Amino acid sequence: MSTQKLFNVAVVGATGAVGEQILKLLAERNFPIKSLKLLSSARSAGKQIEFKGKDYTIEEAKPESFAGVDIALFSAGGDVSKALIPHAVEYGTVCIDNTNAYRMDEQTPLIVPEVNINKVSEHKGIIANPNCSTIQMVAALKPLYDRYGISRIIVSTYQAVSGAGAKAIDEMLRQSSEHLLGNEVNPDILPTGSLPVKHQIAFNVIPQIDKFADNGFTLEEMKMIRETKKIMDDESLEVTATCVRVPVVYGHSESVYVELKQDFDIDDVKGLLSDSPGLVLVDDPAGQQYPMPLDATGKNDVFVGRIRRDLSNARGLNMWIVSDNLLKGAAWNAVQIAEHIASLK
Amino acid sequence: MSTQKLFNVAVVGATGAVGEQILKLLAERNFPIKSLKLLSSARSAGKQIEFKGKDYTIEEAKPESFAGVDIALFSAGGDVSKALIPHAVEYGTVCIDNTNAYRMDEQTPLIVPEVNINKVSEHKGIIANPNCSTIQMVAALKPLYDRYGISRIIVSTYQAVSGAGAKAIDEMLRQSSEHLLGNEVNPDILPTGSLPVKHQIAFNVIPQIDKFADNGFTLEEMKMIRETKKIMDDESLEVTATCVRVPVVYGHSESVYVELKQDFDIDDVKGLLSDSPGLVLVDDPAGQQYPMPLDATGKNDVFVGRIRRDLSNARGLNMWIVSDNLLKGAAWNAVQIAEHIASLK
Repeated sequence: MSTQKLFNVAVVGATGAVGEQILKLLAERNFPIKSLKLLSSARSAGKQIEFKGKDYTIEEAKPESFAGVDIALFSAGGDVSKALIPHAVEYGTVCIDNTNAYRMDEQTPLIVPEVNINKVSEHKGIIANPNCSTIQMVAALKPLYDRYGISRIIVSTYQAVSGAGAKAIDEMLRQSSEHLLGNEVNPDILPTGSLPVKHQIAFNVIPQIDKFADNGFTLEEMKMIRETKKIMDDESLEVTATCVRVPVVYGHSESVYVELKQDFDIDDVKGLLSDSPGLVLVDDPAGQQYPMPLDATGKNDVFVGRIRRDLSNARGLNMWIVSDNLLKGAAWNAVQIAEHIASLK
Repeated sequence: MSTQKLFNVAVVGATGAVGEQILKLLAERNFPIKSLKLLSSARSAGKQIEFKGKDYTIEEAKPESFAGVDIALFSAGGDVSKALIPHAVEYGTVCIDNTNAYRMDEQTPLIVPEVNINKVSEHKGIIANPNCSTIQMVAALKPLYDRYGISRIIVSTYQAVSGAGAKAIDEMLRQSSEHLLGNEVNPDILPTGSLPVKHQIAFNVIPQIDKFADNGFTLEEMKMIRETKKIMDDESLEVTATCVRVPVVYGHSESVYVELKQDFDIDDVKGLLSDSPGLVLVDDPAGQQYPMPLDATGKNDVFVGRIRRDLSNARGLNMWIVSDNLLKGAAWNAVQIAEHIASLK
């Protein structure tokens, strides 16, 4: 029996929606932990969290918190990552960052394990976890990219409110109740907490996620465009995106149109996706089976279906991709990276 | 003062969701009515409906109901249209059909007034009203088609449950209540009443509207593809569609990608759409203003926004189109056609 190496692990943002899922996965996966440090803002410090039957006290995250930490998983917002990760790196901690802070940094690999796990070795202390809507799309497209080549991607998203945090979930459910009772609905958080104008999400859809860039795209759309090219390591890839919030709690859905570089057989495409790790093909029109966010909730996989050839373009392929945005879109992708790091040591 | 010609009008399916809106619009618009006949299935016959302060008794729609009727508006389902319209045509009634029965019939013009009102004159007694999701898209794209040419359309829809009828609205609201109360949700109607498998729509999205064709597209998607080419009178137009039901009561939204045949200036595009009849431009990213189904509910217009150039393709244009599926998507488009017919007599 081999002796497994154990790691000093820190989770930053342990009380958040993603932090909670990271802890659940570390426990479920029996991650090789020597010591566990749960870190957060001063506001949550002192709270107790149970992990594998033992209570841990949350500590305020400070630069010196990372002394002796081997692996830290960050999901406490971009500002926290920017402030603390440089200190953690100095202590020799490998930082897996779930925020936008370092994703487009040239020194930082942006990793979806099914796509480019080989790039992890290039890290200089930081490994970035991509945006939720990007992860599930590139995970589903990578097998097609490798087999046929992809020249263009046109995606429209149907994104769950949990992507905007626990408060947005509460707001959506509260608004739904008020609407059903015939009461006034007062939007408070969505589309984005940091901007002045608020819109009702209950029984509505909002074509804005994150702020707008000057080019008319939202930052969420720009993340999908830029991150996809970086992860696929192909700047020639044409990508355009429209990101939309829908009244769903968990699970992002994506209507994706891809133009392949070669002819394809539609059954080969289905077989390829079905055989790819991390993907589950749910594609039975006769049985009315296709991926849906309610079915994907709580699962680590990326679900693909509605696979069909564009009738007007022989190299065009329509598909529908669904995954739990807090799991493969955040916590599970981060824990997969952590497991890979652990396996290398 | 000219004497206005008055018409004997029949509304078939007067008690349905669309029929109700047709009557509301005929009253609001002060349509030149000599006599009004409200027709429906035997089940609703005998019921009373008020129109402009007068009570009308619903009669069962029969072949002989159309004797003396000048204009009949049908929205009682494709089977009713197929059974009755040939008889109505024999009586000389001009039939405006809101169902799928005659849309692709070569003898029948398929009309969106802002696009092809000139084709009305070709009718042989039947004028077809297109599918809701098609109408709002072609109304928004026609000015671009005329100015720049369009080679390709890729659309993903976010369709309201009212498109599946009043029972689907009830089901969605009931499911939402049950879900919020933590009770079991038993889907009963959606995705489509005539098929065996049912899925929850509350807090979910369902990538199926209508049945599946053998090619993997749903009939709703095929309607968008075929009707768009017929209305635009351009079989070379490349169109692909993904149609998705979302938990919204009224108002279909569409993420539309178009490839134009010529270069364009983005401000010219906005100006053109803004100046086109029936369209309202809502496009102020800085002010977080864009079309949303809640805002479009109860309005006859088609709302367009999120206008931006594809960063990877100089002739690619992203846009977002929203309209009330029961109004411009059905009743209003039909009443516009009826007004045109009336103006010709």
